[in-house]
Amino acid sequence: VKEIKSHKSFFGKTSFFEHESTSTQTPMKFAVFCPPESVETKGGLIWLSGLTCNEENFITKAGAQKYLSELGLVLICPDTSPRGLDLENEHQDYDFGSGAGFYLDALTPAYSQHYRMHQYITEELYGIFNQKFSLKNNIGIFGHSMGGHGALVLALQHSNLFASVSAFSPIVNPCLAPWGKKAFSGYLGDDESLWAKWDTCELLKQGKKHPQEILISQGLADEFLEEQLLTKNFEEAAEQASQNHQVEYCEGYDHSYYFIASFVEQHLMHHARILSQVK
Amino acid sequence: VKEIKSHKSFFGKTSFFEHESTSTQTPMKFAVFCPPESVETKGGLIWLSGLTCNEENFITKAGAQKYLSELGLVLICPDTSPRGLDLENEHQDYDFGSGAGFYLDALTPAYSQHYRMHQYITEELYGIFNQKFSLKNNIGIFGHSMGGHGALVLALQHSNLFASVSAFSPIVNPCLAPWGKKAFSGYLGDDESLWAKWDTCELLKQGKKHPQEILISQGLADEFLEEQLLTKNFEEAAEQASQNHQVEYCEGYDHSYYFIASFVEQHLMHHARILSQVK
Repeated sequence: VKEIKSHKSFFGKTSFFEHESTSTQTPMKFAVFCPPESVETKGGLIWLSGLTCNEENFITKAGAQKYLSELGLVLICPDTSPRGLDLENEHQDYDFGSGAGFYLDALTPAYSQHYRMHQYITEELYGIFNQKFSLKNNIGIFGHSMGGHGALVLALQHSNLFASVSAFSPIVNPCLAPWGKKAFSGYLGDDESLWAKWDTCELLKQGKKHPQEILISQGLADEFLEEQLLTKNFEEAAEQASQNHQVEYCEGYDHSYYFIASFVEQHLMHHARILSQVK
Repeated sequence: VKEIKSHKSFFGKTSFFEHESTSTQTPMKFAVFCPPESVETKGGLIWLSGLTCNEENFITKAGAQKYLSELGLVLICPDTSPRGLDLENEHQDYDFGSGAGFYLDALTPAYSQHYRMHQYITEELYGIFNQKFSLKNNIGIFGHSMGGHGALVLALQHSNLFASVSAFSPIVNPCLAPWGKKAFSGYLGDDESLWAKWDTCELLKQGKKHPQEILISQGLADEFLEEQLLTKNFEEAAEQASQNHQVEYCEGYDHSYYFIASFVEQHLMHHARILSQVK
């Protein structure tokens, strides 16, 4: 793992790294914020970004460092897909291929070798993060849009790995959303029975639960709410499954980082509360 | 003035505008943050960005909205130069021409018609801002690097227009710095006697003063400190001139937006304190 650059910020450090991933068989980049040494580390957080993003978006735009620094939380932000490849249709659309890994392990011949973001996050990146910062598995996960989908799916699949979970504007039911259908067809193939394990609502229906409250913030002026995000389906599935959850609808807010920045303090407090208890 | 897009943020609104400027004879863009209507407006702030930046950098990266919203300050961020032209050498270097207007009125034949950022900021943009938000000239100015230079020079030249002033990592003595020499030669010509009115240290030596304390934050790990920024020259000139000032050197911080974000709250408090008094 090689450090590319590092900037002091909020008495801590924002840094960028690159490493050769065995999961994706490509180089992968990630960003880290590390609170000042004077603050006791409460735990770690993995942030998963949305479509078209990379490891930089959240750490430059969300204004999280102030709170991470005060709360004693280490943050790691991976990229959203492998890079540097030239697979079939990989660079054609914003919502498939590069910048759109969907945090799953692909099955189709064209993608199965490299598009293994689930494995990359839950095994490789998790391991590096856990070890480098001595986190003792006291790690939460959150994300935005496609990354909100990733955070929810990974936390339900691996509630032993992720002590806390939250999401901004997540794609909660990708099996029924155009973005999800396109991604799942391309990465998993046409057998829809193989899609369910990558869908939050389906996982809840199958009995997967998370021991802690799932926090979701959703803007009511979000242009993708009705067609792609389907937040109501999550509420129904979570109620059916008796999954502890809180969905906050935010009047007037859209799908952008201006929305995330406005409520990031609340999400970080949610994680800090749980990660402090666990510890 | 045409609104391009708008995002609710921190209960207020971050918006982007475009208009036909009579000063630069080009279209110009700017960003605005407007606090929620429930908060009483204390005053307005003009932010001037540095080399290579445009109207977006500060408003997406600095994390200022939270404080502006709480303090009741309206913010406007102009672009750093005219755009859409093709003047001699205009797009060759990052430190001259587009993205590098230096907040002056050019005199050289190639640039004098369009590169009039001083006039644009102090007359046209100031007028739009003052009127649109009923600010009654209760306006402060601040900026970063080239924009820190702009904020200091404009506030010293027009202390009647700018009630408060501060700067991050400003170019305080451009007549003696490579960035300044290159810009001033290209925009003003070889007669160095014409440069002094665009140089903070020279203005102080000539007796220009600002009635309020000038706040400067400067990172000690800033890669441009020794050669380009020359902060010590400001301290000397301000002391000689009995200009009330506070220069904060920040251990370990560099020239980036991670530095700005870390201390933006302090700068906004400085402006809010003065603008509240004035009002």
